[in-house]
Amino acid sequence: MVANQHNLDVEAPDIVTSYGLADALAQHAAATPDRVATVCQDAAITWQGMDRRYDALAAELLHAGVGPGDRVLWWGQNCHRLLETLFAASRVGAVVCPVNWRLSRAELAFVLADCAPRVILWQESEIGDTVRAMRADGSGGDALWIQHDGTDAESYEARVERHTSPPERARPSSAEAPLLMLYTAAFDGRPNGALLSQRALLAQSMSLRLLESLDATVVYLNSGPMFHIGSLRRTIAVTHAGGRNVMCRRVKALELCQLIDQERCTHAFLQPPTMSQMVEANADRRFDLSSLRSGAGPPGWSDMVTVIDADHKVSSGYGQTEVAGVVTYRYPDAPSIGARPGPLARVEVHDPDGSPVAPGDLGEIVVRGPMVMNGYHDRDELNAYRSRGGWHHTGDLGRLEVDGSITFVAPLQRMIKSAAENIYPVEVESVLRRHPAIDDAAVLGVPDDLWGQRVKAVIVAAGKIDEEEVMAFCRTQLAGYKCPRLFEVVQSLPHNDVGLDRARVDALHGGGGYPGVAASTGEPAR
Amino acid sequence: MVANQHNLDVEAPDIVTSYGLADALAQHAAATPDRVATVCQDAAITWQGMDRRYDALAAELLHAGVGPGDRVLWWGQNCHRLLETLFAASRVGAVVCPVNWRLSRAELAFVLADCAPRVILWQESEIGDTVRAMRADGSGGDALWIQHDGTDAESYEARVERHTSPPERARPSSAEAPLLMLYTAAFDGRPNGALLSQRALLAQSMSLRLLESLDATVVYLNSGPMFHIGSLRRTIAVTHAGGRNVMCRRVKALELCQLIDQERCTHAFLQPPTMSQMVEANADRRFDLSSLRSGAGPPGWSDMVTVIDADHKVSSGYGQTEVAGVVTYRYPDAPSIGARPGPLARVEVHDPDGSPVAPGDLGEIVVRGPMVMNGYHDRDELNAYRSRGGWHHTGDLGRLEVDGSITFVAPLQRMIKSAAENIYPVEVESVLRRHPAIDDAAVLGVPDDLWGQRVKAVIVAAGKIDEEEVMAFCRTQLAGYKCPRLFEVVQSLPHNDVGLDRARVDALHGGGGYPGVAASTGEPAR
Repeated sequence: MVANQHNLDVEAPDIVTSYGLADALAQHAAATPDRVATVCQDAAITWQGMDRRYDALAAELLHAGVGPGDRVLWWGQNCHRLLETLFAASRVGAVVCPVNWRLSRAELAFVLADCAPRVILWQESEIGDTVRAMRADGSGGDALWIQHDGTDAESYEARVERHTSPPERARPSSAEAPLLMLYTAAFDGRPNGALLSQRALLAQSMSLRLLESLDATVVYLNSGPMFHIGSLRRTIAVTHAGGRNVMCRRVKALELCQLIDQERCTHAFLQPPTMSQMVEANADRRFDLSSLRSGAGPPGWSDMVTVIDADHKVSSGYGQTEVAGVVTYRYPDAPSIGARPGPLARVEVHDPDGSPVAPGDLGEIVVRGPMVMNGYHDRDELNAYRSRGGWHHTGDLGRLEVDGSITFVAPLQRMIKSAAENIYPVEVESVLRRHPAIDDAAVLGVPDDLWGQRVKAVIVAAGKIDEEEVMAFCRTQLAGYKCPRLFEVVQSLPHNDVGLDRARVDALHGGGGYPGVAASTGEPAR
Repeated sequence: MVANQHNLDVEAPDIVTSYGLADALAQHAAATPDRVATVCQDAAITWQGMDRRYDALAAELLHAGVGPGDRVLWWGQNCHRLLETLFAASRVGAVVCPVNWRLSRAELAFVLADCAPRVILWQESEIGDTVRAMRADGSGGDALWIQHDGTDAESYEARVERHTSPPERARPSSAEAPLLMLYTAAFDGRPNGALLSQRALLAQSMSLRLLESLDATVVYLNSGPMFHIGSLRRTIAVTHAGGRNVMCRRVKALELCQLIDQERCTHAFLQPPTMSQMVEANADRRFDLSSLRSGAGPPGWSDMVTVIDADHKVSSGYGQTEVAGVVTYRYPDAPSIGARPGPLARVEVHDPDGSPVAPGDLGEIVVRGPMVMNGYHDRDELNAYRSRGGWHHTGDLGRLEVDGSITFVAPLQRMIKSAAENIYPVEVESVLRRHPAIDDAAVLGVPDDLWGQRVKAVIVAAGKIDEEEVMAFCRTQLAGYKCPRLFEVVQSLPHNDVGLDRARVDALHGGGGYPGVAASTGEPAR
């Protein structure tokens, strides 16, 4: 039997210090077996029910030959079965990759090939045509395909129902091993799968529970996509705390109002436009949304929900997928210019040589702590680069404020080095764009024998450009060494899907000679 | 230079996911540099001051040749310098062992030899005579002795003052490495040094902060001994949260009242007799103790302090040094027979064969999670035994209640095996002692060819013993297989420092043939 290749008795040395999602589930199943853990469309699953179902799914995964490190891809929308898949994977040591089902076929094809899953859990509703077409084209290779919303003998539900008695008692898997894989933005056209351990997910959960007082009374409406850490970190924290997750496949204002009313949701993942739509959808007040605790919203919002005073609420600062969520926060009782690290995160702003910058200066935001990813799937060189010197390098530009707090500035773009000075194009561009005669601007470094590089601005003009006057304007906003010495006016700048196409700007306008980072390591020159 | 043998640039692979005490200190030094972190006798040290002082101490430890895994022994009472020593040790990867200064000389001699410290921080006040006498007898070997409360050129303060500029920026040490070593009770005459990592200490800290809402406003009076985890876990949680620690060398009611009044302490470690003494010491109400948040106390107590409603407070259940504190709690909003695991602890009750017991049954309490110790110092065999099967075996007897919660019963004594049944002497003895004709009782297993062992009771009688009647009494309280079949009446039972001397009872009364655990492993047969 294939399953024997990956039996559950492999014991990692750190098991005795491990605690994972399945442990939390076991606790809630013992303490509140009949309490509803998840609500999803017509299903309401208790903690005991989830405990049984994930056990059964783990047995199925084992039977399919899934073992430690193998990937299980979730190609569907928000669903309680994704949460069950996470639990099941934690039991067999596998890695769950929930893909963004909104991606283009080309993007999905890359992700499927890169992830190389052993099992694909897919959804018929809404996205079945795309799935079938890609499968017919060979995407997914020889993975076992399981329809999660099907009803036939090989569907998810049929497989879970097959196992009526719990499988043999298994050793837990290590909390240090990766459990979740989330593809991050493809600045250079190649997304990378960030591998997050249960240690990382639970460090974020503990921080969130501590700072936001999340407990077993929380009813969380999963109205954000579960393939994004922003929403999923809360799903996990609520599960960990023994609260209830209400699933919602996609964001429709009317449905959200119905669910909040019906399930008495206390928390939700909502963007301002959605909140406006909900005010409209509930104009006649037929839905009671008073259970929802929320910050301030658009006109009419505060009449419908219970508004939480923002002055007494910790709010999120900087985060990214690679740290499983958020690592800096704003603490209302200790105001600061930027945000400050959470209770388990060390956050600094570093020079390219790995030293902390001086207060007021810019540099790369770096992080240490249990929430840091294990690395990207199958990216050894990039992983070594991103974790150099014992710090996770976020690839994001930040400012160390004079009070020691930290402000996120922008994704870290290519850095210019002129003499000994570091110049971040994104900072200079933001100043140029504030000039009334400038519509758009790109800043690049051009090779220079004396200084290494010189700063050049390529400008899309809104009016007449007086170089001297623009330089003087820059000097009022920036240190002299950051100000462009060379100017070129163009009709338009080249862009790609995520912004300025810097490689093209360099090619067109003489850029080159960039220091360290982008030049020598294969790190995407964004 | 010796220090080069242990430079700080050794990088553990898990550094990027590590977060330790020094990281918390750095955060508070950045956020609230001028806020007082610790108060101790005449000293009030700010976060910035502590940051500088621990750096200087780390440099001293390095200079003394202290490197990863080396022990630094604290032979003193409660003091802010012990906290600084923990920070400094975390920086060089060393292990701090705060000894119980109340131990006898024989006990101290064992601990010093077993710990084999490279540096001993000692105290003149109150205990200097003992220290000097033992040092003269050769205790401590060739350790570097540093007086922490001295003023000469080689004292702690002089050494810390020597370093006015911060040492070279160092790599952090791994949060997985042991930082703290606490000797646990010597049931068999040999104490064992439990090694606790920063991971373990901070897992406890996060749990405590979450469940007790400890934040930066806490002012904690360290009125419990810092060489015990019960008090020290709170010292660490308060430090982690950015609160203030007020040190107190020993428990004197008047001084406690003064400190609470003067420092506006919000929390303290107090036992009921101390609370009564404080009511007396403050009979004239000259001290304002209203800042102290406390549970109910003796008569007069609630008039002096701010009493917290116990119905809304999570309270501690089961814990031990080896798990860095507490792992089960009582949650007021979810009442249960026993206590339930904390947010990062998996706790079960196991049979000797490693299976969970059925609800209502007794077994050994076992724990998994980040708070579990790395093991005992220099006890390889015992460590393998205590962590068998991927669970930390606490050596404590517990009951899995019918509602899935867990009750601590007693330290796990030798187990009797009769046929297939497990019988815990401590349980049977507690029943026997409730019989009116019985003053004291010891229960042992005697070898039996047919059953393996039979249950025997050795009784100190308070009146006339009718064996049949005692057996009938037992049957009303215990399953039949647990009831003694053999009886012997004696004048007295042999005891040692911590209770019944079971080895002696066996020797005197025919005990033997015990199964698994005690017989085969060298585990102390308590």
